[in-house]
Amino acid sequence: MSKQNAFYAQSGGVTSVINASACGVIETARKHSDKIGTVYAGQNGIIGALVEELIDTNAISEQDVAALRHTPGGAFGSCRYKLKDIETHREQYERLIEVFKAHDIGYFFYNGGNDSADTCLKVSQISEKLGYPIKAIHVPKTVDNDLPITDTCPGFGSVAKYIALSTMEAGLDIQSMCETSTKVFILEVMGRHAGWIAAAGGLAQQAEGQPPHIIIFPEIAFDREAFMKKVDQSVKDNGYCVIVVSEGAHYEDGTFLADAGTKDAFGHTQLGGVAPTLANMVREDLGYKYHWAVADYLQRAARHISSKTDVEQAYAVGQAAVEMAVEGKNAVMPAIIRKSNAPFEWVIEEAPLDKVANVEKFMPRDFITEDGFGITEACREYLEPLIRGEAELPYDEKTGLPRYVRLSHTLAEKKLPEFKA
Amino acid sequence: MSKQNAFYAQSGGVTSVINASACGVIETARKHSDKIGTVYAGQNGIIGALVEELIDTNAISEQDVAALRHTPGGAFGSCRYKLKDIETHREQYERLIEVFKAHDIGYFFYNGGNDSADTCLKVSQISEKLGYPIKAIHVPKTVDNDLPITDTCPGFGSVAKYIALSTMEAGLDIQSMCETSTKVFILEVMGRHAGWIAAAGGLAQQAEGQPPHIIIFPEIAFDREAFMKKVDQSVKDNGYCVIVVSEGAHYEDGTFLADAGTKDAFGHTQLGGVAPTLANMVREDLGYKYHWAVADYLQRAARHISSKTDVEQAYAVGQAAVEMAVEGKNAVMPAIIRKSNAPFEWVIEEAPLDKVANVEKFMPRDFITEDGFGITEACREYLEPLIRGEAELPYDEKTGLPRYVRLSHTLAEKKLPEFKA
Repeated sequence: MSKQNAFYAQSGGVTSVINASACGVIETARKHSDKIGTVYAGQNGIIGALVEELIDTNAISEQDVAALRHTPGGAFGSCRYKLKDIETHREQYERLIEVFKAHDIGYFFYNGGNDSADTCLKVSQISEKLGYPIKAIHVPKTVDNDLPITDTCPGFGSVAKYIALSTMEAGLDIQSMCETSTKVFILEVMGRHAGWIAAAGGLAQQAEGQPPHIIIFPEIAFDREAFMKKVDQSVKDNGYCVIVVSEGAHYEDGTFLADAGTKDAFGHTQLGGVAPTLANMVREDLGYKYHWAVADYLQRAARHISSKTDVEQAYAVGQAAVEMAVEGKNAVMPAIIRKSNAPFEWVIEEAPLDKVANVEKFMPRDFITEDGFGITEACREYLEPLIRGEAELPYDEKTGLPRYVRLSHTLAEKKLPEFKA
Repeated sequence: MSKQNAFYAQSGGVTSVINASACGVIETARKHSDKIGTVYAGQNGIIGALVEELIDTNAISEQDVAALRHTPGGAFGSCRYKLKDIETHREQYERLIEVFKAHDIGYFFYNGGNDSADTCLKVSQISEKLGYPIKAIHVPKTVDNDLPITDTCPGFGSVAKYIALSTMEAGLDIQSMCETSTKVFILEVMGRHAGWIAAAGGLAQQAEGQPPHIIIFPEIAFDREAFMKKVDQSVKDNGYCVIVVSEGAHYEDGTFLADAGTKDAFGHTQLGGVAPTLANMVREDLGYKYHWAVADYLQRAARHISSKTDVEQAYAVGQAAVEMAVEGKNAVMPAIIRKSNAPFEWVIEEAPLDKVANVEKFMPRDFITEDGFGITEACREYLEPLIRGEAELPYDEKTGLPRYVRLSHTLAEKKLPEFKA
């Protein structure tokens, strides 16, 4: 096999460790300079390939590449852009192959979640059909933790640590004030379909009666009456009630709580905010003083509290993706396979992309307590290793803030006519 | 002077370092066992004194006292409870003195903000009038950073670090996605009257064009048109716009933005949430895709990212309060006095309580840029040292979470008839 270039792109919502995967890809590719020439990164993800905006990562110093390991966000830009159907929009795929051909790209590393696993598979398939076969490897990433086969998805462990810790810290705050002040606190977390992040809030509870007292999962239909009963009981038993709620919380009929008819002064539907919606319900039904928080992007960008396990796994899947590619593998994803819980041991194995694409992994029912408002011991055993360890982070002595790297993008010269993505 | 006991209470909203002050008080009192007997802590703040619920801190091990230094929240319970007017509710003050007398308490350490400085002064005054003079020392604490004389208020530096870092991290996230996704991000922070916390968001910006692009202070009346113009300009110049907004943001006539007429489905005024209010305005006026976050209690409880400077200062004011008391000082507050910026040097001096009570320190106009949407270099020079350094924090290897201490409260035996606080 002759030496070819590689293309790497970040896809979908970014995480605090997606750049650690990028670091794994680039550092490992540099070690295989006999087989891989230049690693090009898509500017703003796959769009960069379509419009031929290819960042030349050779222009990035060794030191800056290493700093990607501790920098949150997507250093090359990511995008929410799903390639259209291959039957009706074949031109998009053909353009991709055209760009890859023009830049002698033989390896495609796509760093994303469910949608991008599907795209990655399609790119592999069409490249063969078009007579320019590409080794397409999917690098798993999603805070939603909903990819199948892999034990966890890089990005999730760090959000989990952030949410567990924030729940614990806010819980201590509320507990100390509840005699005369806030009795109900609601923390809204990410997770539209799967409740993994909300479940992580449960790790804060280390003894009965400790927060969180209630978790609301998208896997369990919301029952206002049962919820209020539990809130009231917690206030009576503990003096306060801490609730972690998934943004995807919904009623039996599928309506999101956050879309439950709240309108602004102009009659527009108020978007977002299951926490304030829930808080209003508590006021109406129980009258308790409340506070709420919506962590939003803060949770998935919080590299300062990333878990060591997560950073290591994020790097490892990037590294493994390149190893697999140079071994000639195609249409696979490096999956994290848990070997044992105590001590926590894991390895990387390859998962075929057709088993990964478009499959969502939800919380199993036995990870949720019978009443639907908490996590079980089995869930705790699964989650705990993922938030273990504090990842290294260099701080600047003067500013008191981390030394995150901001790359300047050196684009490769364009060789093709313009294309409208 | 014969040996007497001491009373310590936490007042108002707690912080991530108020327990570090408690640690400073208790550890220093234990060193002065010739002059100070038992330190009693008020269960739930000053209410504990009124209802004679006094926590015997002698029952707390040396190790647990030391762990207070790194534990957020109020370990003894705090309260929002302002003693009533001394002229009309003299019985409250008389009861306090009665409890102090019954437990041979000669020192009163009150750990709080403006209101508690006032209470502390009144306790000192009335105790003399009633012939049982108490040494009353106010230990400064407030995330609002609005006490006069002292350079800063313990609790603020840690919130400042949290907000600066969160703004930086979320900014990197949004920047990487803005081509196809969120263009405007709004982070709501605490500060009803003073904009210190919002200002801290400005520390994230380390070069022109970096986030935050807009800060909204309570010191500057909100001008919707000027704001939208700036949002639009930032999206055009940078591709996105990050906004840090103080919960106290208001219009010229004093109306809070968060109270600007938003109603829920039942016609109730929607409380709280300047961030979602502002987000709706952006949608209406500019149509950009947005996200928003409300950090709420997370910011003031985030001991995991407390600044080293803040933890040291919080401990130091607790320690100094006891030193002042045993030197016979009364009606004073240990104030932090900045001696130099580079290197950052500070000392503790005593400030008379009548100069502290009921005085609020706002952002000076020259700390805010001319257009009212940013911080000046003078502001940065003031703020930066306060967020420097990462405070030590022991993590548990198994749970991946900090080893915060939870005290069990051993109450002193009651000696007086019941009192209704």
